[in-house]
Amino acid sequence: VSASHSDLITLTTDFGEGSPYVAALKGVILGVNPAARLLDLSHRVPPQNIRHVAFFLTAALPYFSAGPLHIVVVDPGVGTERPLLYIEVGGHRLLVPDNGCWTMLARDVGGTPRVIRLAEPRYWRPQVSATFHGRDILAPVAGHLSLELDPRELGPATTEWVHLSVPTPVLESARLSGEVVFVDDFGNLLTNIPAAAFTAWHDRPVRITVAGQEVPRRVRTYGEADPGSLVALVSSNALLEVAVAQGSAAAHLNASVGTPVEVKLIT
Amino acid sequence: VSASHSDLITLTTDFGEGSPYVAALKGVILGVNPAARLLDLSHRVPPQNIRHVAFFLTAALPYFSAGPLHIVVVDPGVGTERPLLYIEVGGHRLLVPDNGCWTMLARDVGGTPRVIRLAEPRYWRPQVSATFHGRDILAPVAGHLSLELDPRELGPATTEWVHLSVPTPVLESARLSGEVVFVDDFGNLLTNIPAAAFTAWHDRPVRITVAGQEVPRRVRTYGEADPGSLVALVSSNALLEVAVAQGSAAAHLNASVGTPVEVKLIT
Amino acid sequence: VSASHSDLITLTTDFGEGSPYVAALKGVILGVNPAARLLDLSHRVPPQNIRHVAFFLTAALPYFSAGPLHIVVVDPGVGTERPLLYIEVGGHRLLVPDNGCWTMLARDVGGTPRVIRLAEPRYWRPQVSATFHGRDILAPVAGHLSLELDPRELGPATTEWVHLSVPTPVLESARLSGEVVFVDDFGNLLTNIPAAAFTAWHDRPVRITVAGQEVPRRVRTYGEADPGSLVALVSSNALLEVAVAQGSAAAHLNASVGTPVEVKLIT
Repeated sequence: VSASHSDLITLTTDFGEGSPYVAALKGVILGVNPAARLLDLSHRVPPQNIRHVAFFLTAALPYFSAGPLHIVVVDPGVGTERPLLYIEVGGHRLLVPDNGCWTMLARDVGGTPRVIRLAEPRYWRPQVSATFHGRDILAPVAGHLSLELDPRELGPATTEWVHLSVPTPVLESARLSGEVVFVDDFGNLLTNIPAAAFTAWHDRPVRITVAGQEVPRRVRTYGEADPGSLVALVSSNALLEVAVAQGSAAAHLNASVGTPVEVKLIT
Repeated sequence: VSASHSDLITLTTDFGEGSPYVAALKGVILGVNPAARLLDLSHRVPPQNIRHVAFFLTAALPYFSAGPLHIVVVDPGVGTERPLLYIEVGGHRLLVPDNGCWTMLARDVGGTPRVIRLAEPRYWRPQVSATFHGRDILAPVAGHLSLELDPRELGPATTEWVHLSVPTPVLESARLSGEVVFVDDFGNLLTNIPAAAFTAWHDRPVRITVAGQEVPRRVRTYGEADPGSLVALVSSNALLEVAVAQGSAAAHLNASVGTPVEVKLIT
Repeated sequence: VSASHSDLITLTTDFGEGSPYVAALKGVILGVNPAARLLDLSHRVPPQNIRHVAFFLTAALPYFSAGPLHIVVVDPGVGTERPLLYIEVGGHRLLVPDNGCWTMLARDVGGTPRVIRLAEPRYWRPQVSATFHGRDILAPVAGHLSLELDPRELGPATTEWVHLSVPTPVLESARLSGEVVFVDDFGNLLTNIPAAAFTAWHDRPVRITVAGQEVPRRVRTYGEADPGSLVALVSSNALLEVAVAQGSAAAHLNASVGTPVEVKLIT
């Protein structure tokens, strides 16, 4: 069996690392394709948090080349009528519940998605539980896809799916208003204000606030700031980021997802 | 080297993800067989908790096909006279300390176990520490087994081992009494009451209590319940489960492993 | 593609398991070499904690054979002038920021390090961010090295690098003074007092204290102690360790990295 991108399967779930459910997913995939190469992305998505995993995917998947199959199991609607989908978009391939977790990624990577609704039980586990479709449907389907199954075998193409609505920043000529959309494990605050909007004013003085609290300084990188000081910078995925050098901006500002962020030109 | 199931080695420990001990295990295995494929199941078993890992294995390993070798290192007796064992049972292969962590799995998957007591130091690390037999004995033995070593080379077969005593539910014609045996990372309560006993009464009204607190509703899947509401359902591994939709039943009921659970027919 | 040690790449970071940054690292490596085999060591190094990761590496890497490439991304100086280095030492190969994280390992494994300063952008991502050199420089370089790129292509050899200063124990004929240098996930306290110094006094009575609190008993292994009791023993990597059997010595003694530890001969 030669190694190729197509036998790589990544896993992103909200199961937690203590969970036997992650292990069960892995077992089922390997039962279908013992040569599949499994890669954990994260099992720490906060439970049932679609917005979180949506942002996670936009921050992670663009760094993968075409080839790997990405399974995403954050699935509050498991067992209800919500479909499961196979997606191709911008060269990326995903297996997801139809809850919008992938549409922010699709917006970022561009292109017209190809979407197939999983409908062929012959590629599923014989018994499908009401509470764990990741194990009983997505995992065996992933195994089959990694064995080069044509996705058309999985079910009908569809042009209907759930779109996740995400907060849109307001970008005006002298004011950018957005919010915190992700807090990383360092406590850095990632906002939905694109760095391009921010850097366009490069040499002009601005006032940056997070929930009304001023961020006193802009830097290019953490190391330019004194440890413990609050700074704004361009994040590694080109968003406005607010950080505390060698500390947690989330703790320092008592900020979390949804906290408003504003950048104003000082005239 | 072709990929086959037999070069797959899974790891389940109570070391924690911050631990260099997990890395050391991996290094030793790969030192013996550079082509071994390593798969983390979990390193979050609560320290020295045999019952927890026993349940974990019953919830995870049945979803694996025959082939992978499962190393389990939860080993409060390390360095004492407790043996280390190679096990084959129900098509699964394990390397474990002799502390009963695998006997609940054996009961579930059935069949007569083949058990070998590790006794051949030539397959171990030259220096065996008193506190880390996982690294010094199990890891190199796993490496050798993944290179197709005949398990008979490892030591003598034995028919004696520690059995883990697990709480047995009392299943009467109008009453099922058990307890919580596992709390997953969502806070869902897995009980030792088999779903079959519960579903046999399908259309008849029952009263379900957890430590005396009533569970007001039965559902087929989480998505049928209002977010935040307390429900009973059949778990993905066919046990009675108590959950809070998009929340934590453990927190809601202040329940943990050992909390009594009862199902009564209302006549 | 045949499996060999040289396509193994391990990852050690302070990103946290919830982080999309780990996934991004993996994606970039696999984009360069789809056949690379990735192995997580830990993503739980405390943020920007060079001493912690330095100890982690000394406790983990010596158990690996020559061959794997170890990426270490704990990088408070990212984006500043600090170089990035390729290291060969004692048969181990690393890619690290030049912050001393590897020099304690070098001291332990011995030999003269070969150090190359990464200077050839052609092996990097086309756009290098100011805040994520792990993804933009180390990951693609690792991919190329796993494809057998000669390290000399990466940049000039250097004999200058940051040395991490680590607390040195004071080993006298009747007194050993050191400190806690690592707390593992069990709460065991690893000290910088070599076991050899301690065991040299094997049969003679000693008084062991942690921040002035006496450790009443020495054991060979945890299982010899009553659960909950405080003991001293030789750690699995040959250091003086203080532990609570089936409990946490860190919590019991309110000890952490830097807490003083003393062993005195009782005359």
